[in-house]
Amino acid sequence: MSSDADHHEPEAKRAKTEDSNNTGDADIHLDLKDFAKFKFGEVLKEDPVRKTLALKATVDGSTDPAVVFLEKSAFTEECGKKILESDTTLKQTFHNDIYGSYTGFPQQELNGVKVTIIHPATGKHIAKFSAKESIIVNETPQLYKDVLLEHLKESAFNVQWVYNILEHRSEQERIVCEDADPETGFVLVPDLKWDGESLESLYLQALVHRRGLRSIRDLTADHLPLLRNIHDKGCEAIEKKYGVPASELRVYFHYQPSYYHLHVHFTSVQFDAPGTHVGKAHFLSTVINNLELVPDYYQRATLTYYLPRSDPLADKLRRATDGVSAE
Amino acid sequence: MSSDADHHEPEAKRAKTEDSNNTGDADIHLDLKDFAKFKFGEVLKEDPVRKTLALKATVDGSTDPAVVFLEKSAFTEECGKKILESDTTLKQTFHNDIYGSYTGFPQQELNGVKVTIIHPATGKHIAKFSAKESIIVNETPQLYKDVLLEHLKESAFNVQWVYNILEHRSEQERIVCEDADPETGFVLVPDLKWDGESLESLYLQALVHRRGLRSIRDLTADHLPLLRNIHDKGCEAIEKKYGVPASELRVYFHYQPSYYHLHVHFTSVQFDAPGTHVGKAHFLSTVINNLELVPDYYQRATLTYYLPRSDPLADKLRRATDGVSAE
Repeated sequence: MSSDADHHEPEAKRAKTEDSNNTGDADIHLDLKDFAKFKFGEVLKEDPVRKTLALKATVDGSTDPAVVFLEKSAFTEECGKKILESDTTLKQTFHNDIYGSYTGFPQQELNGVKVTIIHPATGKHIAKFSAKESIIVNETPQLYKDVLLEHLKESAFNVQWVYNILEHRSEQERIVCEDADPETGFVLVPDLKWDGESLESLYLQALVHRRGLRSIRDLTADHLPLLRNIHDKGCEAIEKKYGVPASELRVYFHYQPSYYHLHVHFTSVQFDAPGTHVGKAHFLSTVINNLELVPDYYQRATLTYYLPRSDPLADKLRRATDGVSAE
Repeated sequence: MSSDADHHEPEAKRAKTEDSNNTGDADIHLDLKDFAKFKFGEVLKEDPVRKTLALKATVDGSTDPAVVFLEKSAFTEECGKKILESDTTLKQTFHNDIYGSYTGFPQQELNGVKVTIIHPATGKHIAKFSAKESIIVNETPQLYKDVLLEHLKESAFNVQWVYNILEHRSEQERIVCEDADPETGFVLVPDLKWDGESLESLYLQALVHRRGLRSIRDLTADHLPLLRNIHDKGCEAIEKKYGVPASELRVYFHYQPSYYHLHVHFTSVQFDAPGTHVGKAHFLSTVINNLELVPDYYQRATLTYYLPRSDPLADKLRRATDGVSAE
């Protein structure tokens, strides 16, 4: 549910070659000192929490649009100090007893904005930076059988990379802990998003050895030994290697997951990790507890989650229910 | 897990009377135009995602410290337009093919910072704005009985303001929808954090008429008519008044809640609302489903949540379990 300005070089190259109607524009980035050549087109996305704004703009002398992504910079200690100690004017909005609310105008050099400019921008870039409307889906057991199982078959998600890790054909040196038992075993590896060092942003994944478990929908009380084993051995290995105790670990599944081979996320509770909102994250402790209370809980439960309105799955669910919003 | 600058007048008054060693300082907010009288003390909390910074500062001529809370302002469409069309200088950080990264310096008046100043600030204000280490708690039914119920008695949370709304003694003009039934009825009002207009950040709360339901822990299958009524009538009223359909509403409880009179949150799924992470938010649809599967689900479930390590409740739980992390 959040866009960002990340990019990878290969994608950029592909985009340029395949999609842009490159008219031989001079490289705009060679000598850009201001927005004089830019004209505001439209807002693609506003994020008032993260303080970002994605814009589409036209550029003088070019037939291709640009994406301009603005992000307010974070405060550092140094910058907070300078704002207090340099000439910052304050304009009062209101005050009430001991509380006062102001707009402050720090000196320009303390108040930079991160600007990312993509030019020439293709339709794919525009789509990537545009707001995506989400909808709520209440997936009943019936919808799971009728729509999700079909969707998974058609989409044929490739999990060969998972098998490569489990069979020690790749990332072998990254394994933090392994239990080779074919029924209850798993491999614990650092998540690709983690730098492997900063304990605050600690992020690992446990991949189960057992095949055929796609997601929490496949779990029953029969899998309790597997789930308890992942919790206990996973937490133990992380405490031993990184010194972070179980009381500071968030241990959870995603539903829908990003790939359909059962896996568990371990992140630090000190870190506002992506994908930890309700409707996405399911605590392993809650899953264990639900299966203890109802052995076939995940075959009987209605699971609520979000989908982008434009997701093909949202479309399939809508067709199956004549209105996804109906409970 | 995020601090904010919210406050209520009564709290401010209480804090002043009970806690501050008020030395008769002149009201600093009467004529404050800059930070000339302030000296940087220390950083209380940095939030690089939301772009906020909480500082402790000393104030010339006062023995009490101040809390200064800085927050970069969100971009509006108008402001994005002006940044592109006025004189904004760009300093390149790097460029690579069609991507360029810059620091932009918009004109000062386009780049205000929200500043909240609390003075004189008490120890409680300092604590409220300081970074808090979190821990994970697995609250078993036994811990709920032994620790939580006692804690609620001792803390004697005041919900008079809720009764004032339910009895039409305050905020009467803000009521969006009311069902007066003493068993299944509720009052729907805009949340204080919502401006009441921007549909993207839509936020309402339903307060149940029935007394004695403190939180989801008190719910059983007997309350299903109440819960279904809140869902259906609440969503219907919001669609009618604001045009936002149920498929775009996140409807949920908090556990632990911020006050112990049962209430339900309604927010727009297009908005990354605070308090929607797993371990805090519980979908009303999931609660209904759990009670359909297990009539006494919430008396039998282990509920997992976060607490600041310094929370008195964390301490009580730790003493009761000899180590909160144990499952």
